[in-house]
Amino acid sequence: MSRKNKIYEGKAKVLFEGPEPGTIVQYFKDDATAFNAEKKGTLAGKGVVNNHISEHIFTALSGIGVPNHFIKRLSMREQLVKAVEIIPVEMIVRNVAAGSLSKRLGIEEGTELPNTLVEFCYKSDELGDPLIAEEHILTFGWADENEIDEMVHYSLRVNDFLSGMFAAIGIKLVDFKLEFGRLYDGDECMVVLADEISPDGCRLWDLATGEKLDKDRFRRDLGGEMEAYQEVARRLGILPNADVTEIADHIKKES
Amino acid sequence: MSRKNKIYEGKAKVLFEGPEPGTIVQYFKDDATAFNAEKKGTLAGKGVVNNHISEHIFTALSGIGVPNHFIKRLSMREQLVKAVEIIPVEMIVRNVAAGSLSKRLGIEEGTELPNTLVEFCYKSDELGDPLIAEEHILTFGWADENEIDEMVHYSLRVNDFLSGMFAAIGIKLVDFKLEFGRLYDGDECMVVLADEISPDGCRLWDLATGEKLDKDRFRRDLGGEMEAYQEVARRLGILPNADVTEIADHIKKES
Ligand SMILES: Nc1ncnc2c1ncn2[C@@H]1O[C@H](COP(=O)(O)OP(=O)(O)OP(=O)(O)O)[C@@H](O)[C@H]1O
Ligand SMILES: Nc1ncnc2c1ncn2[C@@H]1O[C@H](COP(=O)(O)OP(=O)(O)OP(=O)(O)O)[C@@H](O)[C@H]1O
Ligand SMILES: [Mg+2]
Ligand SMILES: [Mg+2]
Repeated sequence: MSRKNKIYEGKAKVLFEGPEPGTIVQYFKDDATAFNAEKKGTLAGKGVVNNHISEHIFTALSGIGVPNHFIKRLSMREQLVKAVEIIPVEMIVRNVAAGSLSKRLGIEEGTELPNTLVEFCYKSDELGDPLIAEEHILTFGWADENEIDEMVHYSLRVNDFLSGMFAAIGIKLVDFKLEFGRLYDGDECMVVLADEISPDGCRLWDLATGEKLDKDRFRRDLGGEMEAYQEVARRLGILPNADVTEIADHIKKES
Repeated sequence: MSRKNKIYEGKAKVLFEGPEPGTIVQYFKDDATAFNAEKKGTLAGKGVVNNHISEHIFTALSGIGVPNHFIKRLSMREQLVKAVEIIPVEMIVRNVAAGSLSKRLGIEEGTELPNTLVEFCYKSDELGDPLIAEEHILTFGWADENEIDEMVHYSLRVNDFLSGMFAAIGIKLVDFKLEFGRLYDGDECMVVLADEISPDGCRLWDLATGEKLDKDRFRRDLGGEMEAYQEVARRLGILPNADVTEIADHIKKES
């Protein structure tokens, strides 16, 4: 970790300069935060599992033509990505009411929404990522109309794809967060999916039991966070048993 | 089968009047045909497996808001659907070159397409379902612009969802055929997905081995058709072992 220049340290990841100009190394930490970092903890191995899950999903999304920043996984905790200019709008895609939507609008958690709802939040830790509307994005120039259309379009495609992927392994995709960025190539600029997709930013409910397989286990002190994250990885067919042992060994060696 | 009025007998299914006006019973036969019915055969149990696979997929598609004709499965070979006016345009959705596209344009089978390709064919057995363009559809009034847009939109959504669902169980969704129909409700008319989705109308390749798990086994005399269809059902988590025995018993009783 020391050999590269640190660009940014976030709550869940550290960004380093990549080996080539225009690349970045995302290092996945075990730190867990919730409620805008009011609650903090460490989940041993989370970074390793999320690095692998995110690799798996971004690779599959490339396969269906959703442009994204992912290049390749470098190690247990690191992946190489294309450096983008992050658009300061978080896209929240919801199929079932939960979390802040349930609270904000008084809709019982678990209520199937009449259609997929895409919400925008302004990406600002100081402000607690407040809900915004398209009008705010245009007014303050965070993205233009074309970029908003692309972000919505890709968010819905990702939702359809992941809904199928998770349904096939007995998991309901309740909601998730996406970040997009601008990828510059000479005069060209395209919108691509960035950041990560992992149980940290998704709500995933076991279809048979309703059990939560995501960060709500941490937010709500339910325990068994790592077992849940690993169960998601296992069902996705990544990190088979051998690898989980390898991860445990890896984490032991790290500490 | 004798208690209801037969409406239509196709190559793979028989349609009967349903119990309520506006409903139809789809009965899934074991008959297999290829090359516009030049090649014919019987695959014992195919109808049972396809009835279950189609139920599974249409139910999941309802879950993500893709409107369709499916109401419920009635028996091993029968499902109740809403009667629609079939739009005489078959939608072929392709992710990888294969079959008629490879032949028609000289693209090697297995070539990943630069983007998902939606093709239209005119649904006519006498003419061998010829390839058409949007212009033909509009010129001959088979569907209006709005209906074409909806069919393309839903075809792409179904593709994303099924690509995820199959990827999660180690299967590449190479291509598939969809049929849509008009559902009338008083003055309202909406476009809904109809017919069936099963290995009869999809190309499904095992991601690890490249093995074909679809009707190409029959078309190309590869053998093992029913094992392949059942493998798809098994991976989808339908027809677990107990049920497969039940199906075998059921088929024995039928004959
Ligand atoms: N390809 C990329 N290029 C540049 N920045 C990226 C890229 N992918 C993700 N990022 C940014 O890297 C940071 C990842 O770190 P982390 O997820 O820990 O942040 P965070 O604590 O959640 O803070 P933030 O609120 O900024 O997301 C995020 O700010 C994210 O927007
Ligand atoms: N909900 C529905 N309402 C009315 N017709 C339907 C519905 N769903 C499917 N069909 C039609 O029922 C028939 C199904 O039978 P089958 O699949 O055996 O036909 P086929 O031999 O493939 O012939 P075709 O070329 O007409 O599809 C098809 O013609 C299909 O278009
Ligand atoms: Mg983050
Ligand atoms: Mg047919």
